[in-house]
Amino acid sequence: MNEKKKVDILIPIDHPRHESLEQRHKIIEGMKKLVVAEAGVIAHGRGECFDYILGEKTSEPAKRAIKAAVALLLISKNPIISVNGNVAALIPNDLVTLSGLLNAALEINLFYRKPGRVEAIADMLREAGANAILGENENEMVEIEELSSNRRRVDCNGIKIADTVFVPLEDGDRTEALKKIGKNVIAVDLNPLSRTSLWADITIVDNIVRVLPQMLKIIGELKLLDNEQLKEIVSVFNNKQNIQDCLDLIIDYITLQKEEAFKILEK
Amino acid sequence: MNEKKKVDILIPIDHPRHESLEQRHKIIEGMKKLVVAEAGVIAHGRGECFDYILGEKTSEPAKRAIKAAVALLLISKNPIISVNGNVAALIPNDLVTLSGLLNAALEINLFYRKPGRVEAIADMLREAGANAILGENENEMVEIEELSSNRRRVDCNGIKIADTVFVPLEDGDRTEALKKIGKNVIAVDLNPLSRTSLWADITIVDNIVRVLPQMLKIIGELKLLDNEQLKEIVSVFNNKQNIQDCLDLIIDYITLQKEEAFKILEK
Repeated sequence: MNEKKKVDILIPIDHPRHESLEQRHKIIEGMKKLVVAEAGVIAHGRGECFDYILGEKTSEPAKRAIKAAVALLLISKNPIISVNGNVAALIPNDLVTLSGLLNAALEINLFYRKPGRVEAIADMLREAGANAILGENENEMVEIEELSSNRRRVDCNGIKIADTVFVPLEDGDRTEALKKIGKNVIAVDLNPLSRTSLWADITIVDNIVRVLPQMLKIIGELKLLDNEQLKEIVSVFNNKQNIQDCLDLIIDYITLQKEEAFKILEK
Repeated sequence: MNEKKKVDILIPIDHPRHESLEQRHKIIEGMKKLVVAEAGVIAHGRGECFDYILGEKTSEPAKRAIKAAVALLLISKNPIISVNGNVAALIPNDLVTLSGLLNAALEINLFYRKPGRVEAIADMLREAGANAILGENENEMVEIEELSSNRRRVDCNGIKIADTVFVPLEDGDRTEALKKIGKNVIAVDLNPLSRTSLWADITIVDNIVRVLPQMLKIIGELKLLDNEQLKEIVSVFNNKQNIQDCLDLIIDYITLQKEEAFKILEK
C-alpha cells in the first residue's frame, strides 16, 4: 500500500496515462530491487506498445481466453503458476490470491538468473502473503533436459509434476518445450505473435494487471460448474481463432487511427 | 570498437535477433553509465515492438521521409540536432559525422534530467569525436516559456536560434511547442501515432540505427543539388500521407501474419 501511495504522489491520479505510468514505476522500482531483469524493463516497453495498439482494455477475445484459462486451471490435477520478476513486481497480491483460490503453487522460474534475484522475488511474494513458494530450494530442483539451459532446473514439486503450467508473463521462450513434455500451457502475452503466444494452448492477449483481477472475478462463478461443464468451456475454445481475432483488433485500431489520430492537429 | 567486440562475445553474430539484441545491450549499458534514463529503457522496448510490426527494415515511406529530411536540413540556415540519452547510446559515431556534414551543432536537451546525465552524454559524444556540444554550459542557457518545464532551458546558440530542429529520438513531448514557436521539426520515431510523429513536419518512422547511415549515404548526392531543387523535394513531401502509408505497412504485416505466423507450429 505504501508503494501505491508513493506512486500517486509522483503521478497525478487524473493523468491520462496514470495507469501506464504507475506500472512503469513498479517495473523500474522492481529493477532497482533486483526483482526485474534489465531485459524485463525493455520487455515491459514492448508490452506497452502492444497494449496501446490493442486499445488498453480487456477485449472480447481476451475475456474468452480468460474464461477458458480459469476453467482449465480448475479441472487440472496439478496446476502450477510460473512466476518471473515482472509479474511479481506488477501485481503480487492478486497473484498470491489466485494461487490460493486455485490451489496452484507459485514457482519462481527465471530465464534471466542473477545472484539474489530468486530471493528478491520470493521476498516480494511473501510480502504479498505467499506461504509456500517453489523454485527456491536448490535441494528440490531437478533438471528437465528439453527445457533450455537457464530454465532446465525446475522444482520437483512444481513444474516437474504439473499437468498445467500457467505463465502470467514469460521472460524466455520455453512454451514449445513445455508442450513437448506434455504440459498444458496457459500464457498471458500482449504480443499475439510471440512464440509463447503461438505455442500455448490458451493465450490471453491482455495486460497482466487487468487479467488477474478478471480471473479472480470469474473464478467463483466457474467453481459452481461441474467438471463436464468446465471441460466443455475448454474444448470449445479455439486458440488460433482467438489470436487471429486479437490481430483483427490491432488492424481495426490502426485503420481507425489513420484519420482519427490527426484530429489533434486541428485543435 | 571495444564495445562492439564485447557485445559480439555475448551475442553470436549469426543469432537471428543479433542486431536487436546488440541495440538492447547498448541501451542497458547506457543506463548503467547514466546516459540512458530508466524510462528510456522502457521507451526502447516500445520502439522494438513497433520496429517488429514494421518488418525491421527501412520502408519506402521511411526512405522518402529521410530524403525530405536531409533536403530540409541542407536548406536550413541554423539546423540543430537535439540529442537525448538513447540516441547517444545507440549510434554516437554517425550522429557526430552527420553533425559535421550538415554543419548542425549537437545540443543535449533532456526530459529526464538527473545530476551527471548531461555530462555522461557529452562524454559519450566526445568519445565519438564531437567537438562543440551545446546544452552543457549553464551560462549559455536561456528559457523558452512555451516549452515544458524540463525542456524550457535551451542553449542560446542552439535551439533558441535554430530554424530547423532535428530530433533523432524524442524522450518527451515538445514537438507541438517547437512548432508553435516557429521551428521546423524533423523527428525519427518508430511509433507513427505518437504526438511527436503527428506534430513534426517530417516524420521518419524507422529505427535510428538504420536512419542515420541512410542519411549519411544520400547526403553527398543531395549536396550536388541547388536550393530550388532541394526546396522542391521538401515541398512535395506530404507528412500525413507518409504516416498513413506507414500505418498501411503495419496493417499489411499483421494481416500477413494472421496465417503466416502459425506455420511454426507445423514444423
